[in-house]
Amino acid sequence: MSARWVVGVDIGGTNLAVGVVPLDGGTPAALRSSPTQVHLGPDAAVDEIVEMAESAISETLETHGGTRGHVLGVGIGCPGPLDLTEGVVLATPNLGWVDYPIRRKISDALGLAATLDNDANCATYAEWWRGAGRGVDVLVGLTLGTGIGGGLVLGGRLVRGASGSASEFGHTTIDFMGRRCACGNYGCLEAYASGPNIAARAREGLRAGYESVLPSLVDGELDRITAVTVYDALLLGDAYAREVMTETAKILGAGVANLVNLFNPQVVVVVGGVTRAGEHLFAPLRAEVRRRAFEAAVRACRIVPGELPETAGIIGAAGIFIAEGEYTR
Amino acid sequence: MSARWVVGVDIGGTNLAVGVVPLDGGTPAALRSSPTQVHLGPDAAVDEIVEMAESAISETLETHGGTRGHVLGVGIGCPGPLDLTEGVVLATPNLGWVDYPIRRKISDALGLAATLDNDANCATYAEWWRGAGRGVDVLVGLTLGTGIGGGLVLGGRLVRGASGSASEFGHTTIDFMGRRCACGNYGCLEAYASGPNIAARAREGLRAGYESVLPSLVDGELDRITAVTVYDALLLGDAYAREVMTETAKILGAGVANLVNLFNPQVVVVVGGVTRAGEHLFAPLRAEVRRRAFEAAVRACRIVPGELPETAGIIGAAGIFIAEGEYTR
Repeated sequence: MSARWVVGVDIGGTNLAVGVVPLDGGTPAALRSSPTQVHLGPDAAVDEIVEMAESAISETLETHGGTRGHVLGVGIGCPGPLDLTEGVVLATPNLGWVDYPIRRKISDALGLAATLDNDANCATYAEWWRGAGRGVDVLVGLTLGTGIGGGLVLGGRLVRGASGSASEFGHTTIDFMGRRCACGNYGCLEAYASGPNIAARAREGLRAGYESVLPSLVDGELDRITAVTVYDALLLGDAYAREVMTETAKILGAGVANLVNLFNPQVVVVVGGVTRAGEHLFAPLRAEVRRRAFEAAVRACRIVPGELPETAGIIGAAGIFIAEGEYTR
Repeated sequence: MSARWVVGVDIGGTNLAVGVVPLDGGTPAALRSSPTQVHLGPDAAVDEIVEMAESAISETLETHGGTRGHVLGVGIGCPGPLDLTEGVVLATPNLGWVDYPIRRKISDALGLAATLDNDANCATYAEWWRGAGRGVDVLVGLTLGTGIGGGLVLGGRLVRGASGSASEFGHTTIDFMGRRCACGNYGCLEAYASGPNIAARAREGLRAGYESVLPSLVDGELDRITAVTVYDALLLGDAYAREVMTETAKILGAGVANLVNLFNPQVVVVVGGVTRAGEHLFAPLRAEVRRRAFEAAVRACRIVPGELPETAGIIGAAGIFIAEGEYTR
């Protein structure tokens, strides 16, 4: 009997990515990716996704045998807020889509059943299913990127809350009189430690006169500094960049300590580009959590980077379809 | 056939309370309560609990008929940290007990199977079972007292975490560079809004010269001010006491907004003596949550006082035994 497959779709503000995932969540058999052309709108993105999916399905079936019937469905991950019941994107700040029925659009075009969940839930679920938090009872996922998001897997199931918006870890205040966040709250974790806010904090220090290699990396145009620039400077041995990263780790540590005291997880898995900083990030982050959270809860918990940096979104979206979607086994 | 019963035991730093609870979680058939004599130690407390339980069981069976066999077991609620697996109190700051096998002691003395859980979990479970959050899918309980604790019921089950210490809502920082908390962390919700810390904040203002009726309520001995004194002054129309309560509500609002964004609950139930302040507390608390949390999550959520102010601990402890303990139906 031929293997069976589920298509995973990972919609992001920078890239659209598609993979054909085996039912056990192993390495996708075929991967496709293309830059998100935000200005072309959602229908063009769906066309692109469908084209990549058809191509990836063909490659998979040619390589592994089987027919179209061996592809059971498609799991979609997308930034939110979403209406999970209706499969609709309510709004995505980075994409500009509003009230767009993404699940039905992709399902109809591919002729496959589909599920939709938010990108942070997909990444967390992938790390629970096949990654750094494989099979643990309580897994907290923290996604660091343009925004900060998260997911919670309890007893093998994602926790979604009363209306599908649980686990907004980036939008919990760690400083109730602190800087205003884009969400309207004050002092949110995201207002300090998202990629753009790491860069903003780095620029603040440079404008205050700190010595650093950073300006030379962007030809003096400080607005071009990103979290990646800070990371590059750190690798060049820049003391100021290291300070910014350590400060980021301490702030994240306060946020992660909250999650440890709230959820008492076996694993907190941190995913996203910022984790490329490796121990420069994780060593001070773990130290800050130890300093703040309950000792017994800290002892019970590992804080680790994700193990599926390129494919968590695809594998998790497919995994959610497999766990919760309707398909014929 | 006679009714069947479970004994609920609520161990607190101020009172020991016992009740005989019907299997449907209705009003306890008999209640007993006595002051906790902390200086006498845990064995004396167990003796007192056992005596009250035997008396309450006798009264129940005399009134409703039935035999000892109709009492199926005992659920115990106690401040933590606890070892839930072994049924041991690891440490209770307010009681001074260390490594005390409370579950076995009470079980042996009564000849009944027993379960142990922490007091905040018991109160939350009672509010889910028979109170303000009856039957909802996602219930957050916040217990305000000498400390601040909490509980989370998801799909009818308490969430306990990897080692039984989840839901420590009082020990999440809302000000990561804020005042040091007794737990070692900085800026914990408890460091501002527990009963003793409400009183401490009230004293700070008085010492800084605020006009208030408060000193006259304690014969000028400011150290005797408690959260109840602040509440009494508020009822007398004292503007400073009202300011302290409003400030407390705003701080709690920042903490509850975090819980709303984290758990997306249908209900946040707030229990404990401080809730006697009623709308003086809840109106500014709800306003602050609306200001801070995601609109859709706020819309999905009611923030309400508990409906079982005297008996939540007893009913919840018994309910946990019924849901999870071993007994013959």
